Amino acid sequence: MTTQTPALVAESAGAPFVQRLVGRRDLCPDDVMIDVKFAGICHSDIHQVREEWGSAIFPMVPGHEVAGVVSAVGADVTEIKVGDRVGVGCMVDSCGECEYCVAGYEQNCTRGAVMTYNGTGYDGEPTLGGYSQQLVVSQRFACPIPEGIDLDVAAPLLCAGITTYSPLRRWGVGEGSKVAVVGLGGLGHMGVVLAVAMGAEVTVISRSDAKKADSLALGAVRHVASENPSNFKGLVSEFDLVLNTVSADIDIEKYLRLVKPRGVVANVGLPSEKYQVRPGALIGGGKVLTGSNIGGIPETKEMLAFCAEHGIGAQVETITADEVTEAYDKVVAGQVRYRYVIDVATISAPR
Amino acid sequence: MTTQTPALVAESAGAPFVQRLVGRRDLCPDDVMIDVKFAGICHSDIHQVREEWGSAIFPMVPGHEVAGVVSAVGADVTEIKVGDRVGVGCMVDSCGECEYCVAGYEQNCTRGAVMTYNGTGYDGEPTLGGYSQQLVVSQRFACPIPEGIDLDVAAPLLCAGITTYSPLRRWGVGEGSKVAVVGLGGLGHMGVVLAVAMGAEVTVISRSDAKKADSLALGAVRHVASENPSNFKGLVSEFDLVLNTVSADIDIEKYLRLVKPRGVVANVGLPSEKYQVRPGALIGGGKVLTGSNIGGIPETKEMLAFCAEHGIGAQVETITADEVTEAYDKVVAGQVRYRYVIDVATISAPR
Repeated sequence: MTTQTPALVAESAGAPFVQRLVGRRDLCPDDVMIDVKFAGICHSDIHQVREEWGSAIFPMVPGHEVAGVVSAVGADVTEIKVGDRVGVGCMVDSCGECEYCVAGYEQNCTRGAVMTYNGTGYDGEPTLGGYSQQLVVSQRFACPIPEGIDLDVAAPLLCAGITTYSPLRRWGVGEGSKVAVVGLGGLGHMGVVLAVAMGAEVTVISRSDAKKADSLALGAVRHVASENPSNFKGLVSEFDLVLNTVSADIDIEKYLRLVKPRGVVANVGLPSEKYQVRPGALIGGGKVLTGSNIGGIPETKEMLAFCAEHGIGAQVETITADEVTEAYDKVVAGQVRYRYVIDVATISAPR
Repeated sequence: MTTQTPALVAESAGAPFVQRLVGRRDLCPDDVMIDVKFAGICHSDIHQVREEWGSAIFPMVPGHEVAGVVSAVGADVTEIKVGDRVGVGCMVDSCGECEYCVAGYEQNCTRGAVMTYNGTGYDGEPTLGGYSQQLVVSQRFACPIPEGIDLDVAAPLLCAGITTYSPLRRWGVGEGSKVAVVGLGGLGHMGVVLAVAMGAEVTVISRSDAKKADSLALGAVRHVASENPSNFKGLVSEFDLVLNTVSADIDIEKYLRLVKPRGVVANVGLPSEKYQVRPGALIGGGKVLTGSNIGGIPETKEMLAFCAEHGIGAQVETITADEVTEAYDKVVAGQVRYRYVIDVATISAPR
């Protein structure tokens, strides 16, 4: 570990962040070093720092929505050069050889993809994420960020963007599709703008009307408050796709009723309770209940190109390193509009 | 009702069949009259005669797996002529104008497709099915049976055939696909031969090994007895598609584990209990839980052409009208290999 880099570190589960140096490995022939500029705060960072998803690896440096500039490349790196703007998402390595890696679904790698943090690399070392000023990853996992997207609004695309882009594409959203996005948070707001850019007519389903103006500003044609069940009456069999971004437990059949025959309810939020579904709710209309987990690297690159073409970035609030611990509480309280990104230049640690 | 035709009639819920005349409507300009030759016995006939699916319309003439020869056509019938061999499945009418009818998914017609029996026609009259010697339907719902398929083995294609063909096609089964068919009954045995003909490597999952020889004879490469849970161990992430034809309640997550990432569990059997699914069982691998309900008319015609091309018919045991009441008990006991078809010429009722 020859490079020491300033990072935001949680020393133990739920601990406030401290700013100190962490090590980065020497470049392997296939590696690139990235000077990180911005790192988004994803709700899953909070779950992992707080050990809400089971035991985690500490010290932890979260961050899998990373945007920066390449500062060095290994001897075998051919596709990326120093000065390139790149993003890193949830994965930093995979076997590269199994049927899923070959097909571009590295998240399903049979050896197990290496997660950007709270994971273990194939070298046996714990991985440390993007809340830091340098990051070293295999070139395959550094995704070019095209000109035309600023790095601050690009960072959240690497998780919130691809997580919503992938199911929209898989299920054929395009011109004239009718899409409902459930939940208007970090994921949901990306789902809205991406679906709108694909040509869909988008409805936001949110708990209350509090974010109605935001929904319309993002391009949705309709905002429905789910706290009033009667609002659902006119929406039966209305949608080709319901994209559920909410992690709270919901009555999934209620949303299956909203999709047309052969329609799809795709979940990207991870509630704790089981879905309960009458067989007839799927069989009668040939409906689909599915989920989606981030997206592969080819699709991530495609998504970034799509966002550049359509001028899409996340809606962000940029914060300093000192504000991250407090920001976590605000994310949990639903007070962010719609993604915090950390300006990692503000991380202070003597070299 | 100018035509009186011999039929098998259940006068009330669960009553044994009597053989007597029932009426058929005069031909409308768009109608064809079919001299029925064979009618398959579908398990759903039994559910409806016995009112196991809620209250039903009596007197009832079941039968939605119908094969026969056209004996008369209405003034506006252009695509079908007297002497044509045709089949009729679960539907005899639909609005023809809604987005689903236009797309060829008449089973999802917004006005409601008219079921072949135990339904009500758009004229307000109860419908009577194919356990009879004549049937009158709109020409749109008479599907040509190509030369090369005998009418007895063709009849079950109109329900068991299309019910399994449709999800196999929707989910892209083709050369090299790995498919598991759960349950080897009327539906399951069609699922096996159709998937094999599409080029798939097919595994049968059945309760015991009793039907193992049959599975292999139908073209499956493997027969797995589900009564021994250890048999599932080697099958994790093995299949592109699990086609579940069983109506008994099953642990659906057990089958979701058998499909690859992005794989599909498609249900055509209708159990009584809800599916219970951990969100992670769908989200982690982007897996799909879905159902399928018969198939539309264009796809039914395509299926019949596919069967003719591949020499596929159902495996049938032909019975007489007198044997139907007893045959129902045998179907429920799982003793049929694999579909009873009624030779409707044996229905005896004085004209």
